[in-house]
Amino acid sequence: MTTPSAKALVPFVSVDNMMRLIHHIGIQDMLRDLASYIEADFKRWELFDKTPRVASHSDVGVIELMPTSDGEAYGFKYVNGHPKNTSEGLQTVTAFGLLADVYTGYPVLLTEMTILTALRTAATSAMAAKYLAPKGSSTMAMIGNGAQSEFQSLAMQAICGIDTIRLYDKDPAATDKCAANLAHTGLTVVKCATPEEAIEGAHILTTCTADKQNATILTDNMVGAGVHINAIGGDCPGKTELASGILTRSDIFVEYPPQTRVEGEIQQMSPDHPVTELWEVITGAAQGRSGSRQITLFDSVGFAIEDFSALRYVRDKIKDTPFHYDLDLLADPDDPRDVFGMLMRADQS
Amino acid sequence: MTTPSAKALVPFVSVDNMMRLIHHIGIQDMLRDLASYIEADFKRWELFDKTPRVASHSDVGVIELMPTSDGEAYGFKYVNGHPKNTSEGLQTVTAFGLLADVYTGYPVLLTEMTILTALRTAATSAMAAKYLAPKGSSTMAMIGNGAQSEFQSLAMQAICGIDTIRLYDKDPAATDKCAANLAHTGLTVVKCATPEEAIEGAHILTTCTADKQNATILTDNMVGAGVHINAIGGDCPGKTELASGILTRSDIFVEYPPQTRVEGEIQQMSPDHPVTELWEVITGAAQGRSGSRQITLFDSVGFAIEDFSALRYVRDKIKDTPFHYDLDLLADPDDPRDVFGMLMRADQS
Repeated sequence: MTTPSAKALVPFVSVDNMMRLIHHIGIQDMLRDLASYIEADFKRWELFDKTPRVASHSDVGVIELMPTSDGEAYGFKYVNGHPKNTSEGLQTVTAFGLLADVYTGYPVLLTEMTILTALRTAATSAMAAKYLAPKGSSTMAMIGNGAQSEFQSLAMQAICGIDTIRLYDKDPAATDKCAANLAHTGLTVVKCATPEEAIEGAHILTTCTADKQNATILTDNMVGAGVHINAIGGDCPGKTELASGILTRSDIFVEYPPQTRVEGEIQQMSPDHPVTELWEVITGAAQGRSGSRQITLFDSVGFAIEDFSALRYVRDKIKDTPFHYDLDLLADPDDPRDVFGMLMRADQS
Repeated sequence: MTTPSAKALVPFVSVDNMMRLIHHIGIQDMLRDLASYIEADFKRWELFDKTPRVASHSDVGVIELMPTSDGEAYGFKYVNGHPKNTSEGLQTVTAFGLLADVYTGYPVLLTEMTILTALRTAATSAMAAKYLAPKGSSTMAMIGNGAQSEFQSLAMQAICGIDTIRLYDKDPAATDKCAANLAHTGLTVVKCATPEEAIEGAHILTTCTADKQNATILTDNMVGAGVHINAIGGDCPGKTELASGILTRSDIFVEYPPQTRVEGEIQQMSPDHPVTELWEVITGAAQGRSGSRQITLFDSVGFAIEDFSALRYVRDKIKDTPFHYDLDLLADPDDPRDVFGMLMRADQS
């Protein structure tokens, strides 16, 4: 019938093609690459158009849009969060994203982001740990062994040199799943029966549980001096994982304070509780880890710029690969003022 | 390789399939149907989650996200506005949209919306005119003969009984294009050399020009008693089409005041200039046209609920048609916690 021009076509990366792309690059290389892209964008943090995510809440979950722009490219992610979905055989979180050209407003990439978000979240955690975790860290406790746990473990291995993962989940089946998935990765994996056992000897404590209510995955007395806490499970109002006493004793690093104060662990604290923005650590404007007994806490909720970095990366990497195909998403009449004529001619051809 | 489950697949309507769908239904029937869906949603206006569009501005244009929800479905539209695009052979406006299930957060429809927006904008204008234009209106002046002009003309014909269109554009080629496109529609089309000539005897004055700066397409002395003005070209800060004197003499109807006060014709007026919300006219809570000498003005900027109605309509209409295909957009592992395992298994199959 009609043959759309190249301008009207948007490259699309399906779930299947995203998996192929990851295997083509190698998951550890891809985690390292993503961390580099994210780090590069954190270094130019100030030039981004930033806004807290635009959320639509219901009784059972939330649907969010996360837009940002660096002035040349514009990206956004659609993401839902429905903790009850798992019990119905569905994903708690699904996502897709789009990158567009600011100069024309035309989209240039549409991609699945359920898997890509798992990778960018892990890459962000490891990138932060590179600046904040104790020097020579080799052991991570992984509390919560759901969909994010393997990605966290591999990113900490690839980027921070972690060689041992101590797993704990209140559901032993989740721990078994995670341990089996990490079996041939070169990591030493230890299954633990309690959170206390999991954190024994760990330099990095990663919490990533899906509890919706304010929970206390880590109590104050569990956290000793000198560790780095990577708290990624608290990501919406009413959802936290750490005892407030831990927050009081920690130096807290965040992505974007207006969003973190609503969604992160620090929603438990006063609105002016001191935090350091991670991008300032990366540019050198603020100090990261300052001593061996300091407790550092990355209160991560996920920010649009990390998705933007991941979209940039996918756009760059799919070039000259077969891992995408074109969608006829944009109308492109020969005469831009003649949308109607294009429509009428389509009926005759 | 992997075969995604039905839950992971999202029906997609391409530009080509949208054009087929329109011809399958018939453009006039589709405009009438869309007006009905929009009217139904305006009747239940209060239950929608409403927010002004989320805009990212640059020197040359704007990219916007327009989300809304009725509690059962969630919809958003991506749309750009780049007036300079036309001179580069590109569309000023391109758009696509998504509908999702609020209960699961899973997308259920992805569709082109460049053409669909043209239809919903025209259907909204005609739906408003049904309530606001003088009884027995038969003639419309169409000032600005760009991409929206034919859709406006056909919607006013289908929904309000307009039989004569008087065209004016500062570029005669645009008028020629519009007149040629309307040649076999049953409308009497009159090409006019000046705006003054175009409005002679017209009951409805539609302005839809693409000028970026504050322009005066209609001056105060051009607008006599008893007409309905359908002002759709003013849709961003700094872009207006009407002399402020016209606004002073008109009863002004708007979609969503927080957005219209920034983007519409009333950005020229004080922030508390009286306006009536269109949905209140439709429910009967407020009066529409009250007399034969009244000037009514629909200061339309386009609102997310209109796109939501259009998305609902497309979702309903593509069922049992071939005008869509499935996109592998959502990861759907057998075990929702095992995204990593799905990824690893994809490499072996």
